[in-house]
Amino acid sequence: MKVTAEICVIPLGAGVSVSKYIAACGPILEAAGLKPQLHAYGTNVEGEWDAVFAAFKACHQAIHDLGAPRVHTAIKVGTRTDREQTNADKIAAVRDIGG
Amino acid sequence: MKVTAEICVIPLGAGVSVSKYIAACGPILEAAGLKPQLHAYGTNVEGEWDAVFAAFKACHQAIHDLGAPRVHTAIKVGTRTDREQTNADKIAAVRDIGG
Amino acid sequence: MKVTAEICVIPLGAGVSVSKYIAACGPILEAAGLKPQLHAYGTNVEGEWDAVFAAFKACHQAIHDLGAPRVHTAIKVGTRTDREQTNADKIAAVRDIGG
Amino acid sequence: MKVTAEICVIPLGAGVSVSKYIAACGPILEAAGLKPQLHAYGTNVEGEWDAVFAAFKACHQAIHDLGAPRVHTAIKVGTRTDREQTNADKIAAVRDIGG
Repeated sequence: MKVTAEICVIPLGAGVSVSKYIAACGPILEAAGLKPQLHAYGTNVEGEWDAVFAAFKACHQAIHDLGAPRVHTAIKVGTRTDREQTNADKIAAVRDIGG
Repeated sequence: MKVTAEICVIPLGAGVSVSKYIAACGPILEAAGLKPQLHAYGTNVEGEWDAVFAAFKACHQAIHDLGAPRVHTAIKVGTRTDREQTNADKIAAVRDIGG
Repeated sequence: MKVTAEICVIPLGAGVSVSKYIAACGPILEAAGLKPQLHAYGTNVEGEWDAVFAAFKACHQAIHDLGAPRVHTAIKVGTRTDREQTNADKIAAVRDIGG
Repeated sequence: MKVTAEICVIPLGAGVSVSKYIAACGPILEAAGLKPQLHAYGTNVEGEWDAVFAAFKACHQAIHDLGAPRVHTAIKVGTRTDREQTNADKIAAVRDIGG
């Protein structure tokens, strides 16, 4: 099952600046072949369901390994059976209408 | 890795009333032993990471099988290494303070 | 414009236990007449758009006043023009189908 | 109160393709001076709390006016009292660490 997804990780008990924890996730998502696209409120990825969520689990583990005792993550995930659609397709569909 | 999580599924291209699709998820989460707690904006669960996300994948599949061509899901997931915490613990912690 | 909504506040730079900050929001939402329903991953409310978001802003201010330098909040909000629907209606619609 | 925020609107009862509804929001957010940045899972904005949420309300109204009977929106919003931080700052903080 192919998915597009967004992950936004929030370490708790790790101070007010959380960028070093977020930065640990990029290479994990990249190595998993998920075409990560960092933005200001998360990272968008795409791939097979199992690969995506295995990588998200690895992100949690990596953030804990860096010292954060608690991680709260928000995920959006979309699947469709009518046709394939990449993250780039989604942006293009809106841009084409002038949005 | 133990998690608490919330899932909120939104079928697209399936009409304005989506309760039948959401209702299909309850038995899946229950059968997986995830102690689902339905509320007005999702369902809270708890269990091992792999069991939770396997069940969420099964929810997507079930909603597609019911005829929805597209499913958008929002997930919150929390892990912590300092101690175990159930969904009931989280509510009690706030209630104890008077929130 | 009537809405149903969910708010989930996450203080950052405020330690690993965040229940006291969450507890500060309950009375604010209650006093605004939004019928708050606490669950393990947020609080569901209902009311007019402006009243709901004024209360959410007051929650942010209250959490900062308690000492948290940073607050990350996730909100879900729904509006519909076809008919009115309360949070209780939403749960009942799913329960009626056996979900 | 300055905020950074993300909005992700999902029209229900409006068919499987929702890009035209999403496209209606861009000009609203732009006209409000919120520096919208479209990505594959939403649009990031920044500005004063009241201006941001007034614009989000206008997005709901615009989507209803286009014919969608129901709109579900997910919002992330962040405030901080320790220092100002733009969406561009957030991305730069992660990039600087190599994420």
